[in-house]
Amino acid sequence: MAANDDVHRASTFAPVNIAIIKYWGKRDTKLNLPTNGSISVTLSQDDLRTHTTASCSAALADDSLTLNNAPQDISGARTQACLRELRALRKELEDADSSLPKLSELKLKIVSQNNFPTAAGLASSAAGFAALVRAIANLYELPTSPTDLSRIARQGSGSACRSLMGGYVAWQKGEQADGSDSVAYEVASASHWPDMRALILVASAEKKDVSSTAGMQQTVASSALFQHRADEVVPKRMKAMEKAIHNRDFESFAKLTTKDSNNFHATCLDTDPPIFYMNDTSRAAVRMCEYINASHPEEKQYCAYTFDAGPNAVVYYLAEHEDTVAGTFKSVVGDKTGWEGARGQKIKATPLPEGAEVAAEKLNSGISRVILTSVGDGPRKTDKHLA
Amino acid sequence: MAANDDVHRASTFAPVNIAIIKYWGKRDTKLNLPTNGSISVTLSQDDLRTHTTASCSAALADDSLTLNNAPQDISGARTQACLRELRALRKELEDADSSLPKLSELKLKIVSQNNFPTAAGLASSAAGFAALVRAIANLYELPTSPTDLSRIARQGSGSACRSLMGGYVAWQKGEQADGSDSVAYEVASASHWPDMRALILVASAEKKDVSSTAGMQQTVASSALFQHRADEVVPKRMKAMEKAIHNRDFESFAKLTTKDSNNFHATCLDTDPPIFYMNDTSRAAVRMCEYINASHPEEKQYCAYTFDAGPNAVVYYLAEHEDTVAGTFKSVVGDKTGWEGARGQKIKATPLPEGAEVAAEKLNSGISRVILTSVGDGPRKTDKHLA
Repeated sequence: MAANDDVHRASTFAPVNIAIIKYWGKRDTKLNLPTNGSISVTLSQDDLRTHTTASCSAALADDSLTLNNAPQDISGARTQACLRELRALRKELEDADSSLPKLSELKLKIVSQNNFPTAAGLASSAAGFAALVRAIANLYELPTSPTDLSRIARQGSGSACRSLMGGYVAWQKGEQADGSDSVAYEVASASHWPDMRALILVASAEKKDVSSTAGMQQTVASSALFQHRADEVVPKRMKAMEKAIHNRDFESFAKLTTKDSNNFHATCLDTDPPIFYMNDTSRAAVRMCEYINASHPEEKQYCAYTFDAGPNAVVYYLAEHEDTVAGTFKSVVGDKTGWEGARGQKIKATPLPEGAEVAAEKLNSGISRVILTSVGDGPRKTDKHLA
Repeated sequence: MAANDDVHRASTFAPVNIAIIKYWGKRDTKLNLPTNGSISVTLSQDDLRTHTTASCSAALADDSLTLNNAPQDISGARTQACLRELRALRKELEDADSSLPKLSELKLKIVSQNNFPTAAGLASSAAGFAALVRAIANLYELPTSPTDLSRIARQGSGSACRSLMGGYVAWQKGEQADGSDSVAYEVASASHWPDMRALILVASAEKKDVSSTAGMQQTVASSALFQHRADEVVPKRMKAMEKAIHNRDFESFAKLTTKDSNNFHATCLDTDPPIFYMNDTSRAAVRMCEYINASHPEEKQYCAYTFDAGPNAVVYYLAEHEDTVAGTFKSVVGDKTGWEGARGQKIKATPLPEGAEVAAEKLNSGISRVILTSVGDGPRKTDKHLA
């Protein structure tokens, strides 16, 4: 048995995920139970990740969390729910095996770092809560499966449940009132369809009108179209998207991704008062993707755009079309930060599609940086601990 | 009986109308039968109007139409349908009374002038077709009611049917396959609720992505939300809006107007490919209206915005709030064209609501002119003929 003054610790990296069938609207705000299912692509931790170390010792007076060296308030119900559930699971282990140290009785110190700028407007709470849950589960040596952990992470931040797995991840809506079946599962691993690439176009900072937590409940309460989306539109798309992923069918993947992004933003616009996340820069990104797709005689989908609760575009494409898709954007925003790495340098700027000049100009003035990334795996345990 | 070389002529003014429950989507593209009903406010012809003279004589070799001195193609099925139906009605009169000159056998010369710049992006086809139909009906001395004429004008341009009446006008969807019951009727005259004012914020010219005729059928074909709007959302709003008009209930009028505008644009965004008519300037106009409404302790609706198939905002408000609503916009875009008239000069620039600075700056850079107008009456016969 460990001495009382031992420090126990464990660390993990957790990935960002970007939804291709969007989560928007809760049927239970306390448990973060969604009105509809969602599917996301887990992005590579080589490019974007949260690094979290969880430690506990008898010397700690309180639970604490720092993110990027700034102390965070952890008294909120969401963080507390995660800590409570993880401690309860640890307690079960301790009760079953008295030789285990009583970590569940010690205070927790959680230290987190994102490797991407907060200003990038990426949904950092998903990676953040996934890392927190995964790090504490590692610390507690819980045998809990990623799907079971996803039920816990969901209570911290809905979309966090999808960051506990790699590749292509679905979060099923679930039917139970207690949320026990509202969990994430892997639709397919990253290795099933490894050539999925993503280019994130980070729009110049603009103050966000509405937080996504507040926004989605305004939509639920006031949109005349929202319930139809949740009940009729999304369930069909969930099935079709899973099929597209299983079949590595980029054509269907792309169509479903763009349509669902637009459908989600349509319900935002239909909110009272209306919520606008897409701006003129976002619109230019949409048009540029359309120009790229239209510039091929066979009219195939070379790229698909999606927008979260902000103006940034995430453009998905296959590795084989990197020069065409990322190359076109390089010719438009090649002067921005983000092309410096080995991969970015290798991409050749491709001539603009015909007619795309206006969209190109708008994009160049509205985009501040790009992030080149790809589909990636789930949380990675690490021995690198944050102090 | 008139001699063969007599020139017969008649002239009319016809108004612009701006929908408050939007027309978007046809169930029959040939007959211009809509998927849902709509309601509009007829705007004053003192400010915005089409002036049309219809004449016929044996000396004319062909039917012709000029608009703002430029010859127009009238061979299109829509114009031809209007001419054919009007001639048939005239023929019925001539058949019943042989003393009438056989005008139905003569070619028509139609001359039209708009008193507003085409660049203003106002739906000029509504006023144009209403004026064409009304002028020819005057020339032919048809006893046909405005509602019966609206059935004809609808075939020229859907929303034209609502410009044949003044005040508050509904276009009922109708059920018949031949469109016989898809007509306009007056919900209430301008004198029933005369203090309705409108401020049109004309956005700087930007090339229109998609024509509204093409756009609406793309929406019908591809939006997952559109049918729900047409079947469920609009019918309830039609009833509620008629009630609001009857009760002169601006609170309800404003809520329904803004919600329906946003709902319509939501289905545009949900179209594949997405249609964006609102831009960042439009969004700033929305926010400015919200600031104005929020700046009163009682949180009443002082103004309501609506957007047609373009970025221009039309802001409705009551005369008693002219200084608050138009005054706020004067403080924001007072340097633009359109405030020169007696009414515009009288309006005092009102201090900006708290927090509205960003929206104000965006509006000032994106708006090129304003038009101050109000609810008005239906087409006016005139003896001023265009040559």
